[in-house]
Amino acid sequence: MTARSAPDRLLSVLAAFDHDHPALSLTDISRRAGLSLTTAHRLVSALSQWGALERDESGVYHVGLRLWEVAALAPRGLALRQIALPYLEDLYEATHENVQLAVRDGSEVVYIEWISGRSAVGVRIQVGARWPLHATGVGLALLAHSDVASQDAYCAQPLARFTSHTITDPATLRRVLAEVRRSGVAVSSRQVTEDALSVAAPVRGADGSVVAAVSVVVPQRDAQTPALIPAVRLAARGISRALGWQPEPDKPPGG
Amino acid sequence: MTARSAPDRLLSVLAAFDHDHPALSLTDISRRAGLSLTTAHRLVSALSQWGALERDESGVYHVGLRLWEVAALAPRGLALRQIALPYLEDLYEATHENVQLAVRDGSEVVYIEWISGRSAVGVRIQVGARWPLHATGVGLALLAHSDVASQDAYCAQPLARFTSHTITDPATLRRVLAEVRRSGVAVSSRQVTEDALSVAAPVRGADGSVVAAVSVVVPQRDAQTPALIPAVRLAARGISRALGWQPEPDKPPGG
Repeated sequence: MTARSAPDRLLSVLAAFDHDHPALSLTDISRRAGLSLTTAHRLVSALSQWGALERDESGVYHVGLRLWEVAALAPRGLALRQIALPYLEDLYEATHENVQLAVRDGSEVVYIEWISGRSAVGVRIQVGARWPLHATGVGLALLAHSDVASQDAYCAQPLARFTSHTITDPATLRRVLAEVRRSGVAVSSRQVTEDALSVAAPVRGADGSVVAAVSVVVPQRDAQTPALIPAVRLAARGISRALGWQPEPDKPPGG
Repeated sequence: MTARSAPDRLLSVLAAFDHDHPALSLTDISRRAGLSLTTAHRLVSALSQWGALERDESGVYHVGLRLWEVAALAPRGLALRQIALPYLEDLYEATHENVQLAVRDGSEVVYIEWISGRSAVGVRIQVGARWPLHATGVGLALLAHSDVASQDAYCAQPLARFTSHTITDPATLRRVLAEVRRSGVAVSSRQVTEDALSVAAPVRGADGSVVAAVSVVVPQRDAQTPALIPAVRLAARGISRALGWQPEPDKPPGG
C-alpha cells in the first residue's frame, strides 16, 4: 500500500475528474485516483454527503453544486470573472468575436471566462483550459508583465511548437515580450492554430500589478488587427479600473 | 477531541470559506473549522500544495484556482452556465434588466449565473446566494415543476416571511404553484423585497424534467410584466433546446 496522506487521498478523488472525464463510476474513480475500491467508496461517500460530488440516477458521479459554491469564492476564478463580465460583454458587443479572460498559473494560462457568441467563428476554448504562455495572446501579455527572473526561467525552458508560426526561439520570444511591454498589447498570429489570431491586453489590479489578460480571437485571414487593438485595450482598462487600478495621471498637453 | 473522520476535517477547512469570509488566516480557519491549529496547519498545507487554497503575500488564504477548475465541471454549476450564457445575454439585451439562472438545492434556490448590466437597477444577487423556494420567481418555477411529494413536504414546513407580500399560507402557495404549472411562468411580486418583481420560467433538460429556472428581476413600481413574460419564456426555451430538450409537437391548427 502507498503511504499517501489522508488529504492526499481525498484530493485525488477530486482530481480524478477533468474535462475528458466529467462523469465517473466508483470503479473509474478508484482506478483514476489509484485507490482501493473500499477506500474510494468511503471517500466518495464523504464527498457526496458534503455535496462536493453528486450521484445521478445511473449511479455515475459528477462534481457537485456545493464545491462549485465554494470555488465561486476563488479571487482568480469566478470572483474576477464577476467583475470582468460586463466589460467582456461590451467587448463582445463591439466586435462580435470570441472574447477571453485568462490568468497565469505557473508556465500556463488558464481561461477563466470567455464569451463565444453564436455568431462568432474560430477557436473554441473551454473554461479551465490551459495553454503555454508563449503561444497565446493572453499568455504573451501575462509573461511580458511578469518579473525578469520569471521571464528568464520561462525562456530557458523548451518552447513547445503548435504550428509553423509558434515562437520557439528564446531570443525571438524576448524581443516579442519587449514589444508587448512597449505597446501594451500582444498579438499572437497563427501560433496556436494555423487559422487564428488573437489580440490581448493586460488587466491590472489595485496595486498596478498584472493579474489577468483579456483577448479577442479572430480568424487570421480576415483579421482587422488595428481595429481590434483599441477595443481590447479599452476592455482591459475597464476591468482594471473596476479592480481598483488607478492609471497614472496623463502628462499635461504639450508636456 | 472529536471523532470526526479525515475527509470530514478536510472538508470543514473548505467550508470555513463563504461569502462573508472569502479570505481567512490560519487562525480563522482553525476556529471556523473547529480544528486545532496543528491540524488546521497540516490540512491547509495539503490543500495549498494541491492548489485548492492559495496564500497571498499577507499570509491570508483564499480559495484557489485549481478548485475552481475542478468545480467548473459541475453539471449544475459552470457547465450549465456555459450552455445558458448566450441565451441569458440575449435576454439581457432584450430587457436591459437583471437576468438570473438558478437551480434547486433542497428547499432553496441557488443562483448559478446572473447578468447585472451596469444600467440595470434593483436587487443585486451574488453567485451561490440562496433563497427559499416560495419567495422567488425562480423558486416558484422550480417548486411548481417538482414532484407532488416534494411539493407537499415543502408546503408542510413553515414558510419564512421577508415582506408583507411573501406567501406564507400553504393553501395560497398551492394555488400559486398550480397557476405556475398552467401558465408556464412564475411571477413573484414584492415577496423578497418591497420594491422588486421577478418573472421566471422553467428550463428543461433532455428528458423533459425541469433542471433550472431563468428570471428577470425589475423594480416592481415600473414593471411591464406582460411584456417581460414572452422574453423570459423564450430564453428558458432556448436554454432547454440547447440542453437537448425537444418540445412536444404543436397541435395542428384548429385541432
